[in-house]
Amino acid sequence: MSKYIELKRECYEANMRLPELDLVIFTFGNVSAVDRSEGVFAIKPSGVPYDVLKPEDIVIVDFDNNIVEGTMRPSSDTKTHALLYKTWKDLGGICHTHSTYAVAWAQAGRDVPIFGTTHADHLTQNIPCTEILPDHMIQGDYEHETGNLIINTFMERGFEPSEVEMVLVKNHGPFAWGKNAEKSVYNSAVLEALCKMAQLTLDINPDAPELKQSLKEKHYYRKHGKGAYYGQ
Amino acid sequence: MSKYIELKRECYEANMRLPELDLVIFTFGNVSAVDRSEGVFAIKPSGVPYDVLKPEDIVIVDFDNNIVEGTMRPSSDTKTHALLYKTWKDLGGICHTHSTYAVAWAQAGRDVPIFGTTHADHLTQNIPCTEILPDHMIQGDYEHETGNLIINTFMERGFEPSEVEMVLVKNHGPFAWGKNAEKSVYNSAVLEALCKMAQLTLDINPDAPELKQSLKEKHYYRKHGKGAYYGQ
Amino acid sequence: MSKYIELKRECYEANMRLPELDLVIFTFGNVSAVDRSEGVFAIKPSGVPYDVLKPEDIVIVDFDNNIVEGTMRPSSDTKTHALLYKTWKDLGGICHTHSTYAVAWAQAGRDVPIFGTTHADHLTQNIPCTEILPDHMIQGDYEHETGNLIINTFMERGFEPSEVEMVLVKNHGPFAWGKNAEKSVYNSAVLEALCKMAQLTLDINPDAPELKQSLKEKHYYRKHGKGAYYGQ
Amino acid sequence: MSKYIELKRECYEANMRLPELDLVIFTFGNVSAVDRSEGVFAIKPSGVPYDVLKPEDIVIVDFDNNIVEGTMRPSSDTKTHALLYKTWKDLGGICHTHSTYAVAWAQAGRDVPIFGTTHADHLTQNIPCTEILPDHMIQGDYEHETGNLIINTFMERGFEPSEVEMVLVKNHGPFAWGKNAEKSVYNSAVLEALCKMAQLTLDINPDAPELKQSLKEKHYYRKHGKGAYYGQ
Repeated sequence: MSKYIELKRECYEANMRLPELDLVIFTFGNVSAVDRSEGVFAIKPSGVPYDVLKPEDIVIVDFDNNIVEGTMRPSSDTKTHALLYKTWKDLGGICHTHSTYAVAWAQAGRDVPIFGTTHADHLTQNIPCTEILPDHMIQGDYEHETGNLIINTFMERGFEPSEVEMVLVKNHGPFAWGKNAEKSVYNSAVLEALCKMAQLTLDINPDAPELKQSLKEKHYYRKHGKGAYYGQ
Repeated sequence: MSKYIELKRECYEANMRLPELDLVIFTFGNVSAVDRSEGVFAIKPSGVPYDVLKPEDIVIVDFDNNIVEGTMRPSSDTKTHALLYKTWKDLGGICHTHSTYAVAWAQAGRDVPIFGTTHADHLTQNIPCTEILPDHMIQGDYEHETGNLIINTFMERGFEPSEVEMVLVKNHGPFAWGKNAEKSVYNSAVLEALCKMAQLTLDINPDAPELKQSLKEKHYYRKHGKGAYYGQ
Repeated sequence: MSKYIELKRECYEANMRLPELDLVIFTFGNVSAVDRSEGVFAIKPSGVPYDVLKPEDIVIVDFDNNIVEGTMRPSSDTKTHALLYKTWKDLGGICHTHSTYAVAWAQAGRDVPIFGTTHADHLTQNIPCTEILPDHMIQGDYEHETGNLIINTFMERGFEPSEVEMVLVKNHGPFAWGKNAEKSVYNSAVLEALCKMAQLTLDINPDAPELKQSLKEKHYYRKHGKGAYYGQ
Repeated sequence: MSKYIELKRECYEANMRLPELDLVIFTFGNVSAVDRSEGVFAIKPSGVPYDVLKPEDIVIVDFDNNIVEGTMRPSSDTKTHALLYKTWKDLGGICHTHSTYAVAWAQAGRDVPIFGTTHADHLTQNIPCTEILPDHMIQGDYEHETGNLIINTFMERGFEPSEVEMVLVKNHGPFAWGKNAEKSVYNSAVLEALCKMAQLTLDINPDAPELKQSLKEKHYYRKHGKGAYYGQ
């Protein structure tokens, strides 16, 4: 019997939340869950619709993209997940979708401005949108380079992946992560909500200002860090 | 056995309406219900998702923010609820959400203009959007000051909370209230609908005029007050 | 036993379609069904939410607004229904909602342009938006005058209610009708869809032209009239 | 017993996906499935709502529009389907809807620009919007000419129907196709999603540039053709 049954189950259940939360149609997304002690992660197989996906279909892969267990091909975005896990040691789960409003911002090529406390409850920065990869990287090891693109964007901006748990890959779509797979899906849903709210905010007031610093900090730190008083 | 079982039940059921009415995802909202004779209110615990919330999780708090009964931490917005109950004696329930269109107007920092009779059926004023708190209040007793901000906004505008049962807190989101918790949820749903209609109205006609006075009054007073002929 | 059981049932079932079709929340709408041989119509009672509405709650009213049967108060829009039935002899059902996109166009005060064949499948005219009633009519017999407003709008434009089965009352919302109550609900849902499509069309192309005459006629007459070849 | 039972079943099931995927209301769409060996296709009957449609209602028609089997009238768009099957030998299924965002682009009369990889996963071209038929063709054999309009649009642009599996008929709405009926429905849902994403993209950034060539090709060819590594 596989020693990855629990990991596959976690990955499967997180994937099944995507259609429930209206974040995907058909096969437009994938979630992975990591087991740091084993040095592997579980990820959705490529091209399998959610309504036929089973826990045993989940593929186990190591951080160098070797298939450790599974008969199906892993998600075509696997190399992006692998590099993020390898580089950022605190990630427990990663979620990639093509959710509508997040894709629209990624296609618009704009950071999502922090307009309110819904955003500040989750991060104090504008949600970053990457640049586009140069052609030789697209034609080369594309999904691996997409991982590098995300990591470099965070380095250039001085962002910590534990504080900014989401990104828009320009002209592509969102990636989000968290301490586990479920939290990465949560962050994907929050991102989609923030993107819709921001689009409507600009529609109502094209000159809407960003949230002021004191409110950013108040809302973020009442949910995160030592002085947090939100939740249990 | 707790003497607040009925109050907790009322509060629980009103909270459970929020996901049904698509007004919240995850933990993005809270409803409270007051018992004036006991000088307490029941409120959702902080950080508990709706799909696992149980009636016995509801926390009982007095108007000075002391926990009277309950093992969980009350909603982080509890002090805002407490001050509104303490100041406005007719409130029976309060509802706070981060519903999409209401947040967009709050982030846009604009009052919602009264464009039609759907709005006038519920209030004759534009839906007020507050100012932003000064930094020292944000860094101080923030949730209590948010209550003051709402109350001061109504005083400055000469609004009665019994006639205008909803407000947008700038860069944050909506609060609504009513004679009981269920009615506060109803008003939150009406507010969200009005915000969506107003956004679309401006999208179709940026110069759309406000409703004229005679229609405001006709629709409001056929549902409210002595001459009302709407409903039973 | 009431002789209006069948009529009440038709009216009840048509009303219950409104929440199913996402055309109403709470009590934001009403449908009526007429019995021409008895000179009466059945209409939703005022202020009753759809989830508790029962067939026996439906009220029977004649064309002069007298209650013929029923213990509840009929919809506050009853006089509008009555006058439309009395004036336009072919109407079998009338539906009034506050559906989101139709209200937005009514609040924008604009006719809905005929931009495509979805619209032309149902009518060859722009969907008319009325003017606003003068103050003395609003303060007088308001709901009756709303009926007159609709009828006068059709007279001024030379529209036949059998060919244009829907209207927007300015700053209020849509009324639709048809050969029976079910068809009036169908037309209300079509109207809402056309209003959403038209808003998006203008959003994508503010200079989108109206459909040309030959296409208007082709689509309308393949569904309506002698040469129709759509449907059974 | 009919020899077309399997074909009718395929057609029926594909049609029933349309309301599930929110691509139609009432009778606003139709799907067909072809049997090349028999030289016939199965298509939805005209004017039958989805909630009463049965597999045995499906009509069998040949490529010259003769009814081969069935008691109901085939969809009024049958001649468009027939001509596409007759001309493009690889089509296995065709789907026509009046889905909201696709209709909005068709009414706006604009090609849908390729803004991102969601689009490029399915086609490397902007989604073409046809011209309008001249009046004499509208007044003549309209549905047959609509088929010609689609085919001519592809010829003028040098598009292959196997590579661009969707089109917008100006002022009307979308047609999509694929290797079978189910795939044509899939493409209709993808088209609707792309149309919504593109509308929002322009709303956020009216100057959003098209996807660059290297990304178009990377995404398309990782799912299609010899070097594909997406799916099983």
